[in-house]
Amino acid sequence: MAADQVSNKGVILKRYVTGFPTEDDMEVVTSGFSLAVPPGNPTAVLVKNLYLSCDPYMRNRMSKHDDDSATYIEDFVPGEVLAGFAVSKVVASGNPDFKEGDLVWGLAGCEEYSLIAHPEYLFKISHPELPLSYYTGVLGMPGLTAYAGFLDVAKPKKGDYVFVSAASGAVGQLVGQLAKISGCYVVGSAGSDEKVNLLKNKFGFDDAFNYKKEHDLKAALKRCFPEGIDIYFESVGGAMLDAVLLNMRKHSRIAVSGLISQYNLEQPEGAPNLFCLVAKRIRMEGFIVGDYFGSYQKFEEEMVGYLKEGKITYVEDIVEGIDKVPEALIGLFSGRNVGKQLVAIARE
Amino acid sequence: MAADQVSNKGVILKRYVTGFPTEDDMEVVTSGFSLAVPPGNPTAVLVKNLYLSCDPYMRNRMSKHDDDSATYIEDFVPGEVLAGFAVSKVVASGNPDFKEGDLVWGLAGCEEYSLIAHPEYLFKISHPELPLSYYTGVLGMPGLTAYAGFLDVAKPKKGDYVFVSAASGAVGQLVGQLAKISGCYVVGSAGSDEKVNLLKNKFGFDDAFNYKKEHDLKAALKRCFPEGIDIYFESVGGAMLDAVLLNMRKHSRIAVSGLISQYNLEQPEGAPNLFCLVAKRIRMEGFIVGDYFGSYQKFEEEMVGYLKEGKITYVEDIVEGIDKVPEALIGLFSGRNVGKQLVAIARE
Repeated sequence: MAADQVSNKGVILKRYVTGFPTEDDMEVVTSGFSLAVPPGNPTAVLVKNLYLSCDPYMRNRMSKHDDDSATYIEDFVPGEVLAGFAVSKVVASGNPDFKEGDLVWGLAGCEEYSLIAHPEYLFKISHPELPLSYYTGVLGMPGLTAYAGFLDVAKPKKGDYVFVSAASGAVGQLVGQLAKISGCYVVGSAGSDEKVNLLKNKFGFDDAFNYKKEHDLKAALKRCFPEGIDIYFESVGGAMLDAVLLNMRKHSRIAVSGLISQYNLEQPEGAPNLFCLVAKRIRMEGFIVGDYFGSYQKFEEEMVGYLKEGKITYVEDIVEGIDKVPEALIGLFSGRNVGKQLVAIARE
Repeated sequence: MAADQVSNKGVILKRYVTGFPTEDDMEVVTSGFSLAVPPGNPTAVLVKNLYLSCDPYMRNRMSKHDDDSATYIEDFVPGEVLAGFAVSKVVASGNPDFKEGDLVWGLAGCEEYSLIAHPEYLFKISHPELPLSYYTGVLGMPGLTAYAGFLDVAKPKKGDYVFVSAASGAVGQLVGQLAKISGCYVVGSAGSDEKVNLLKNKFGFDDAFNYKKEHDLKAALKRCFPEGIDIYFESVGGAMLDAVLLNMRKHSRIAVSGLISQYNLEQPEGAPNLFCLVAKRIRMEGFIVGDYFGSYQKFEEEMVGYLKEGKITYVEDIVEGIDKVPEALIGLFSGRNVGKQLVAIARE
């Protein structure tokens, strides 16, 4: 290995996935990484990854899409390293905006070292006094997802009744706390009693339920929202969405962040109760966090303020080492993680 | 029969409907009608109905809803006369806003004479120089549906690509023409070649197709909209909605007026491609024309202007006599009608 070469472990996609992904769909491989900016890419930024973020949207990229009509991002390529959000340290830079030693977050590879060819969406970390891992979550892509989706898409008013599914996850826990800050009444659903306990006792949700213990989701929602729901922050889809539609109020809003229950189905379920959109004049709107990257700095300052004032708390589920990435990614779909799932690759 | 009594034929619901309605679910019965304002209802308005409107939403009222979570209007009651929009002439009034001889439109009964107990939503006809039947359509509830749904919910911009399903119907033909007035490119779908011809040659749609002749709706839409759809005015649901979702553009809008393909299904279909809401940041929003009755006069003047200038044309499918109401209503669901379906009860 040359003097400026280091060993670089990374996670590749072995094959396109249909149905539920397994660890065997991925493989951890080792290659070499040059720590010098390559002459053919003189404005690239080279980073050492410290924390890798595991996010549900990555599942979509593991499938082959024959056309781009139902996706918004390129498919992964079998044999190549998965991409994902990371917190990283710059080790070399040909870009005037970044220098060696800078702490950054943005889209990198699921590997120990990454070459960022187009650093337009690489953000400098302004608050290293907070846990750096927060930049994979509350101060990173999931945080901005919660902030933009709840405040800009769902447009809460004081007193609104808010429901959050997948509520203990990376995004949901923040939506619930932003709802409380906005003067709303908020209820969350999660898939274990431990998570329900977190929602009520750590994140300050007004109420919460374990959806796996409810045989009738419509009735569970009716019990929690006798007057109906003004805002649903949607991350799961399927039976939950269908039950929610029946419990929405007139002129209510559904901000659609994702539909995690559908990602591993070969034939998604749809929502038979869609007529409720008419009956209740519901606005249902999807969004992509990438559209909001331009307002990241404003978000970051506001969220840092909430964290420092103790108005927002954040729970992470950190596993150690790049070898754990496949297991951690797959765990998202069985709800194994408690809080934001991330992988610590290197600590410094 | 007393001196102020007349014979009154009306259409009653015989039983609650599941699945496809049949003529046998309704019955035309004759009763007596007093032409005097009843002492127990001193502010009522009594009307002679001239034209009755047949509208898809009436199907919802023919089913028994165990709760009100998926409907927005009361169920009809078996044995009682169906309600519907009508153009009528006032024959007696205890209400200071209406006097004998006034021509009005609003919610009445499917019968020859109706007592309107609460005339809040009875509108005076300001332009009797136009065909009175237009007040069941282009100048009535369907017209306001097209106007509010397209302009207020879908919010067109000049140059938008607009798709209208059920495009030759009471609402669709107007949405298409409003789209042209708004500077949009508009394509419609309908269920026969005759209707497609109307769309292209009478209503000025830029293109149109017969959905019954397309084996692949997604491909048909791709052919008509190689760059995708900015606005979908939705009246049908089911397979069409699912194909549309795949063809929507980023930041596009779906105004949901109704889902006629679903009304006779015991288990509605949903839309498996709902993830497109996220991938394309689609806003999908339901609306009810009743929310816009307060702006009726503004709408009426604008639409009368378009009609008189020849910028909007309107096609009606008129059948004669109250006995034809059941057949006309049921025909809506097989697409028998060409243009706005209504029934002439009395002409004067």
